[in-house]
Amino acid sequence: MHTFKELVAGFGDRFTVKHFPETPATLYEPGEYFLSWGGKRIRPVMCLMGSELFAEITPDAYEVATAIELFHNFTLIHDDIMDEAPLRRGMETVHMKYGTNTALLTGDVMMIRAYEYLSRINTLYLSRILQLFNKTAREVCEGQQLDIDFEKMTDVSMDAYIDMISLKTSVLLAASLEMGAIMGGASEGNCRHIYEFGKNLGIAFQIQDDYLDAFGDPEKFGKEVGGDIRQNKKTFLLLHALEVANTDQKKLLQELMTNNPADKVQQVLAIFKTCGVDEWAKKLKDKYLQTALTHLQDIAVLSSRKGPLEELAAFLIQREY
Amino acid sequence: MHTFKELVAGFGDRFTVKHFPETPATLYEPGEYFLSWGGKRIRPVMCLMGSELFAEITPDAYEVATAIELFHNFTLIHDDIMDEAPLRRGMETVHMKYGTNTALLTGDVMMIRAYEYLSRINTLYLSRILQLFNKTAREVCEGQQLDIDFEKMTDVSMDAYIDMISLKTSVLLAASLEMGAIMGGASEGNCRHIYEFGKNLGIAFQIQDDYLDAFGDPEKFGKEVGGDIRQNKKTFLLLHALEVANTDQKKLLQELMTNNPADKVQQVLAIFKTCGVDEWAKKLKDKYLQTALTHLQDIAVLSSRKGPLEELAAFLIQREY
Repeated sequence: MHTFKELVAGFGDRFTVKHFPETPATLYEPGEYFLSWGGKRIRPVMCLMGSELFAEITPDAYEVATAIELFHNFTLIHDDIMDEAPLRRGMETVHMKYGTNTALLTGDVMMIRAYEYLSRINTLYLSRILQLFNKTAREVCEGQQLDIDFEKMTDVSMDAYIDMISLKTSVLLAASLEMGAIMGGASEGNCRHIYEFGKNLGIAFQIQDDYLDAFGDPEKFGKEVGGDIRQNKKTFLLLHALEVANTDQKKLLQELMTNNPADKVQQVLAIFKTCGVDEWAKKLKDKYLQTALTHLQDIAVLSSRKGPLEELAAFLIQREY
Repeated sequence: MHTFKELVAGFGDRFTVKHFPETPATLYEPGEYFLSWGGKRIRPVMCLMGSELFAEITPDAYEVATAIELFHNFTLIHDDIMDEAPLRRGMETVHMKYGTNTALLTGDVMMIRAYEYLSRINTLYLSRILQLFNKTAREVCEGQQLDIDFEKMTDVSMDAYIDMISLKTSVLLAASLEMGAIMGGASEGNCRHIYEFGKNLGIAFQIQDDYLDAFGDPEKFGKEVGGDIRQNKKTFLLLHALEVANTDQKKLLQELMTNNPADKVQQVLAIFKTCGVDEWAKKLKDKYLQTALTHLQDIAVLSSRKGPLEELAAFLIQREY
C-alpha cells in the first residue's frame, strides 16, 4: 500500500516523459509544452488508489491513469480556447502561444493519445474500461456545454447547476476511481460505491471552491477573493442568494451585477452574509462530504486499506472553516 | 456478396438514425444536424467491403463502419472551424450556425461517440482494431497540421506533399479497408495488401481531384474549374509546375499568384500546359492506381470476391480523361 503523497510523487515521475512522437513538431511540441507544466495529477492518482484499494497496482493501472491525465489535459486545452483564456497557471495557453487552429488539433491529438494508452491494457477488462471512459468523456463535454448555456441564462435552478458541475468535474474523478477499481477486480457493488464516493467528493470540492473564492482567507487561498463575484460568475453562492433573497436584496444584487461599482465585492458579500449563504454553503459541502464518506465506508474491503482515500478526502476538503 | 452500390445504399439506411441522446440538445442537435446532410459514406462502406472480401459482414463490421464515419465527420467539423468555412455542400457549417465553441465541442463529442461504437465489438479483435483506429486518427491530425504548415511555406517538396496528402486523406481509406479485413479474419499479409490498395487509391484520387479542378469539364465536374488556382492553393499541379518551369515561367507564375489578374486562371493553365503538368498528373495518377490494383491482385482470396473493390476503384478513379 502507498500513501496518497507517495502515489502523487510516483505518478508524477512516471508521467514526466515525452508523450508524443518528435514529428511533426508543429503538432506535437505544443502538446508537450502544455504537459510540461506539471500539476497535481489528482485524477490519475485516484485511478491508482482505486486499484490499490483492492489489489496491487499493475502496469495496466498506469496506462489507464496516463490516459485519464491526457484526457483531462485535452479538456483544458479546448476549454482555454472556448474561454479565450490568455494564461493558465501563469503560463501562456496553447492557443495564445501557437494559434487557435494548432491548439484545436493539439487537443484532438491529445484525446487520441489517451485512447492509445487505453488500447494497451488487458482485453479482459478493456471493453468495460473503454465504455466507462467513453461515457465519462461524453459527460464532461455535456457539462462544458451546459456551463456555456447557463452563463447566458438568467434563471438556473440549483438542481440543474449541481447536475452541470457534476458532469463537468465530478464524473471524471468518480470514473478515475472506478476504472482503477475495475482493474483491481472489485465487485459491481464496490465499483458503485467508489464511483459515488468520488462523485460526491467532487461536488463537495466545487462548493468549497466557490465558498473560498468569496469567503476564503486570501493568504491561505493563494489568490485574491471575490473573482467570481467581480465576473458575475454563476456559483453555488450566487444561485442560492438569488433563491433566498427578499425582493429588495434581489434588486440590489441585480443592480450590482449590472453596474459593477467599485465596492461591488464588499456589497455582494454583505448580501450573501445577510442571507446566510456562507453557512448554507458550509452545510451543503458537509452534506456531500458525508455522503462521500458513507460510500467509502460501504466498500467491502478491510478498512485498513481505506487510509489513502481518507487522506485524499482530507487533502481535497479542508475542515478548518 | 454485395455490390458496391448495394453496400452504399445499405449503410446509408442503417446510418440514418439518431446517433446522440436527446439532451442536452444544445450539444447534440448540432451533431445530428451535420450528420443529416448525408454524403457518399465511402469510408464506412470500404470497411464493410474489406470485411466481405474475406467473410460475411457481421454486426461488428457495422459498429466499426459507423465509428469510422463519425470520426470522419468529426474531422470535417473541426476542419471547417480551422478553415473558417461558411458552407459545406451548400449548408451552413456547424460553427457558423451554432458558434465556434459549440462546434468545437460537437466535434469532440462526435469523436468520443465513434469510440463508443468501437467499444462494443468482440474483444477478440477489439485491441487490434482500436490500435489501428488510434494510429490512423493521429495520422489524420498530423496531415491536417502539415497542410496548415505547408500553406505558409514557399518551398514544399513533392515527397513531403505526397506524405501530407496521404496522412490527411489516404490513411483513413486504407485503415477502413483493413479494419474490415481484420474482422473478416484476414491474414497479416492480406491486411497489408488491402491497406496499401486503399492508400494508393486515395492518393490517385487526390491527384485526380487536383487535375479536375484545373482541367476538368465543368459540366461533368459539377463545379467551376480553377478554384485551386484562384486561391493559390498548393496542389500536385502547382508544385510540379514550380519544379519543372524555367526561370521566366516561374517568375510569371509567382507574379500571377501575387497580383491576381482577371485572367489568372487562363494564364496559369497555359503555363501548366506548356510545362506538361496535365500529362504528368495523368501519369502520376495512373502510377498510383496501378500500384493500388497490384496490391488488390496480390490479396490471396478468390478473384471473384474482388469485384466490389474493383467497382470502388472504378467509381473513385475515372479513366475518361
